[in-house]
Amino acid sequence: MGVIDRKSRLPLYYQLADIIREKIETGQWKEHTRLPPERELCQIYGVSRATVRQAMQDLELNGYIYREHGRGTFVKPSKIRQDLLGFYSFTEEMKRLGKTPSSRVVDFTVEECTEKVAGKMKMNAGERVYRFTRLRLADEEPMMLETTYIPFEKFPGITGDKLEQIPLYDVLANEHGVVLTMAEERFVPVLTRENEAELLEYLPHTPSMMIERLTYSGDLIVEYTRGIARGDRFEYRVVLE
Amino acid sequence: MGVIDRKSRLPLYYQLADIIREKIETGQWKEHTRLPPERELCQIYGVSRATVRQAMQDLELNGYIYREHGRGTFVKPSKIRQDLLGFYSFTEEMKRLGKTPSSRVVDFTVEECTEKVAGKMKMNAGERVYRFTRLRLADEEPMMLETTYIPFEKFPGITGDKLEQIPLYDVLANEHGVVLTMAEERFVPVLTRENEAELLEYLPHTPSMMIERLTYSGDLIVEYTRGIARGDRFEYRVVLE
Repeated sequence: MGVIDRKSRLPLYYQLADIIREKIETGQWKEHTRLPPERELCQIYGVSRATVRQAMQDLELNGYIYREHGRGTFVKPSKIRQDLLGFYSFTEEMKRLGKTPSSRVVDFTVEECTEKVAGKMKMNAGERVYRFTRLRLADEEPMMLETTYIPFEKFPGITGDKLEQIPLYDVLANEHGVVLTMAEERFVPVLTRENEAELLEYLPHTPSMMIERLTYSGDLIVEYTRGIARGDRFEYRVVLE
Repeated sequence: MGVIDRKSRLPLYYQLADIIREKIETGQWKEHTRLPPERELCQIYGVSRATVRQAMQDLELNGYIYREHGRGTFVKPSKIRQDLLGFYSFTEEMKRLGKTPSSRVVDFTVEECTEKVAGKMKMNAGERVYRFTRLRLADEEPMMLETTYIPFEKFPGITGDKLEQIPLYDVLANEHGVVLTMAEERFVPVLTRENEAELLEYLPHTPSMMIERLTYSGDLIVEYTRGIARGDRFEYRVVLE
């Protein structure tokens, strides 16, 4: 298809929007590609300038395109759809989507855990934990900011450098023989704080998803993570049968 | 622990908000407890009035505290934890939590469906659908606002009155023999719009969860719902094994 049908009862702008949406959804027009200028779309599809503008508005409102003043109209990256029923790994998830994952460790310490963290991790307050904050990127674009706590005595040898090279779950599996058996995640809509927004290259005070995760290996809590995911780049999905 | 760290790169207000959140989450400060007045918090934590105010604003926006004019600031009751791996029914869920569920139908029409809704429901644009908006309450407190579309020809006899008396899934099961076989839900953090906030008795432009749901009976899409859940009253949880 990809042609305007003048006998159809569907409005012309809607047909045009559909044709463009199809090009975007099937990947013929990739993210951040510039769309042809309005006059060119008029010629290609034999429609008026008003029809093209209405189609563009429809596509913009539905999150398929974005405009940059003076530069043109571009294909918007689609939101990353995160399936909630699979065991989550940022690294694996991004690879599956054909993106190159990377992590930047913005903070790394070993400290005595607070009562709050001890409570979450079923440890005693004062026991030592790693606390590190990682900015997770996909194709160099910041996507999530995660602060993770790991029991220090049980897993010696973790360093910030290592975490930038090797996925956390691989470090735990390969160096410590950890087999993850359960994960519990909590999702709460929040506003991005200023320091988070800066790292995420996102606007402060905009909707984001706070994700809290506890990962278990048998009875042992291996990991407690509190993350913020950009609300414009992620959506979460669950299918129940 | 419980102390502002002036050497930290974290902003003071953020540290203070974290300390108070910890007191709330660990139950040291119970729901509906009044917080110490601002000037007292300034003294205890050695921070300025502006810092205390910013921390309070952060806690309020994230649903940890509420203010009552002339009375002070109080700990908000904790959120309703919604498990994502069970088949969702607002009515059943609230009963399970010992709350009395009710629904107020704020809008009810039968209309030709738009292209967007037709696309979601795999119907033809122009086919008739019920469109109704329900405010869902628990113990008379507004919790969610849901707009639902149901194919009209397939399920005659649904009325607004009926929906205030009988849960939707009971109407579909009892009057139409519908057996639900699958549900697909999508979660996106959003800001509450003004008209939504008014009905939800919630602040506009605050974090909320947008939940989009498609419910199937075999191949038939029985229901398409787009709902807004108060971000201060719900959290969503998933456990993976």
